[in-house]
Amino acid sequence: MEPHARKLLTIVTEAALEGKILRDLEQLGTRGHTITDARGKGRRGVRDAGWEASANIRVEVVCDAGTAQAVSAYLREHYYRDYAMTVWVIDVEVLRPEKF
Amino acid sequence: MEPHARKLLTIVTEAALEGKILRDLEQLGTRGHTITDARGKGRRGVRDAGWEASANIRVEVVCDAGTAQAVSAYLREHYYRDYAMTVWVIDVEVLRPEKF
Amino acid sequence: MEPHARKLLTIVTEAALEGKILRDLEQLGTRGHTITDARGKGRRGVRDAGWEASANIRVEVVCDAGTAQAVSAYLREHYYRDYAMTVWVIDVEVLRPEKF
Repeated sequence: MEPHARKLLTIVTEAALEGKILRDLEQLGTRGHTITDARGKGRRGVRDAGWEASANIRVEVVCDAGTAQAVSAYLREHYYRDYAMTVWVIDVEVLRPEKF
Repeated sequence: MEPHARKLLTIVTEAALEGKILRDLEQLGTRGHTITDARGKGRRGVRDAGWEASANIRVEVVCDAGTAQAVSAYLREHYYRDYAMTVWVIDVEVLRPEKF
Repeated sequence: MEPHARKLLTIVTEAALEGKILRDLEQLGTRGHTITDARGKGRRGVRDAGWEASANIRVEVVCDAGTAQAVSAYLREHYYRDYAMTVWVIDVEVLRPEKF
């Protein structure tokens, strides 16, 4: 079985946005996601996972290039101005392309 | 010291498989792994880390290309049909190639 | 908005080093980081996140290639001999290059 090229999109943002982001992802056509709790520091200062109010989440989505681009554009348009959010995209290989 | 090319293999699967997967990895020749607890949604529905029974784990292994291929093939053959499992492979650079 | 190439540097190391590593990163010019708690096994044996003393952390930093190289070199020089530490670097794309 040959590996197939896909994109891994990682979103690091405020934990309070989790439900909203997951609904966005579903509407934008992604097929699955992985969430891990995180803490961090960015342009909006130190965020400590021990404080629920300022906890961060790290959402990973494997998808095709077009979906990665659409999700990136959507997030930029709807969240970048008002929320702490960092997004990066990586080339990955997967064995079951029909899954993503 | 020059960077060396290796593969980062990420496995997202059911937390109950942790011990089994780690034994597989060791037998397949990997030298180390990193595990983070996760929750997510895939083809088998929403998994919430708050519910131990359906918690997910995210296992990362840095290894050479041959090992990444062998591990991918093994996981596909032994787990894909019966368990929720997503695997992706990324090109990475490391400074200490002898470690992986 | 065009995507821009950056590096994603991931450091997996002993949780006790968190404060020290974050100060290092700041002094080396990084603009932000994401931390997740982890457990794992490497050359120094099994580390279980349930045991605070041996917990691991996974620190991610998105930065330019020069900073990634400087951080890698610094970590190698200051920590590799005495601590459990694994570092890898991945090519990523970001939409807001001024942020990293």
